[in-house]
Amino acid sequence: MKENYKITIQYEGTRYDGWQKQGNTDNTIQGKLEQILEKMTGELVEIHGSGRTDAGVHAMGQVANFHLPEGQEAPAVMQYLNRYLPDDIAVTAIERVPERFHSRLNAVKKTYLYQIETGPKRDVFVRRMQYGLGQPLDVEAMRLAAKLLVGTQDYKSFCGNRKMKKSSVRTVESITVHCDPGSSVIAISFVGNGFLQNMVRIMTGTLIEVGLKKRSWKEMPAILAAKDRQEAGFTAPAEGLCLAGVIYGDE
Amino acid sequence: MKENYKITIQYEGTRYDGWQKQGNTDNTIQGKLEQILEKMTGELVEIHGSGRTDAGVHAMGQVANFHLPEGQEAPAVMQYLNRYLPDDIAVTAIERVPERFHSRLNAVKKTYLYQIETGPKRDVFVRRMQYGLGQPLDVEAMRLAAKLLVGTQDYKSFCGNRKMKKSSVRTVESITVHCDPGSSVIAISFVGNGFLQNMVRIMTGTLIEVGLKKRSWKEMPAILAAKDRQEAGFTAPAEGLCLAGVIYGDE
Repeated sequence: MKENYKITIQYEGTRYDGWQKQGNTDNTIQGKLEQILEKMTGELVEIHGSGRTDAGVHAMGQVANFHLPEGQEAPAVMQYLNRYLPDDIAVTAIERVPERFHSRLNAVKKTYLYQIETGPKRDVFVRRMQYGLGQPLDVEAMRLAAKLLVGTQDYKSFCGNRKMKKSSVRTVESITVHCDPGSSVIAISFVGNGFLQNMVRIMTGTLIEVGLKKRSWKEMPAILAAKDRQEAGFTAPAEGLCLAGVIYGDE
Repeated sequence: MKENYKITIQYEGTRYDGWQKQGNTDNTIQGKLEQILEKMTGELVEIHGSGRTDAGVHAMGQVANFHLPEGQEAPAVMQYLNRYLPDDIAVTAIERVPERFHSRLNAVKKTYLYQIETGPKRDVFVRRMQYGLGQPLDVEAMRLAAKLLVGTQDYKSFCGNRKMKKSSVRTVESITVHCDPGSSVIAISFVGNGFLQNMVRIMTGTLIEVGLKKRSWKEMPAILAAKDRQEAGFTAPAEGLCLAGVIYGDE
């Protein structure tokens, strides 16, 4: 009998090729975790993430699950992982969960955060987490555009995978454009039931173009209706994006 | 005629050999700044820092001053510096100041912050700013010890330079041991009129030894009285230390 473990992971994605394992020349978060679990158990352990994150994207609360032979203590597993993980990946929580729990299939909501420095220079201590745009943005226009991107809609125009065959309908519950008074940092949070490939980064790029007045907030419905990636804005850089957390049914 | 400029600088010290310029193989904050000012003005410009920081030590509010030929606009000077500085050094403020202003001689107070992760793994996003101790500390004992290290005293036992000839009397106004409930991070702030070489790090190392119960808080007066570096604790690692700010007479 195997037992099922759920872990919460944070990582600074800067020097990784994203979450998802990639065969031989593996430099991914999933790969690092699996290598350590294999060392610990002496057998191959497959980790299921709540979803992929692109190369360079960070996570404060990625969630994954995996099965281990019976009889392990959860805190000891977490300790072992943290001892062998590099400094830029950490397991922040672990719990044993029912056999049926699957981190991707059971995820109900995800929250992403995208941070933009509009001033001339990023704060040196958080620079790796921000996109250094270096130009002022019209936050009010971005908020009007963000409102129009919320809902249950076909987000095909915001999908980076042009060959995607499955449904591109998703529910985006909220997009909030935060800006503290006097701060030159703009943070956009996205909450939804799932996001297509690059979707958060393309939405962010589109909102940035609105903020730069390169396009009007009123264009959003037409962009959605076109179902054409060409109609949306640029893909904002990975470094500004962070998977903030994943919510499950019982939470 | 030259004009005098005061700048505030933040840096992540991780990859530098400290603040102070070092001849040929220069990899210092001061050196980087002077190189850019030389490029800008076509002449050598000497920068005076409020004080040195060791290799690997960070700053949120280092202050320095330098003289430039007349007719420069302060914001343009800051913009030029930030354009050519690497990502881990930033100028956050600039102002033209009276000729007599000197960042080291006029400094009235300095604040340092030392951060310690007592849990098994540092938060990946702030890890470069923390010492990863990985052991619990007795905060109350540290607070009792800290109280005894405050005052106008001879801090020779806490001086890393054993050949120091000048007075090692300093005034330490406060040492505060912060720990948020539920947090495994301990932050110690030091406010004083000046600190000897490695003094904050040796005080921190001594407080850590008290927190680990390797020594009693009651030993502090004897350590001070000994005027002997051997009596104090270890020199805590540079990575946990940050020069938070420098206060001048008129502030």
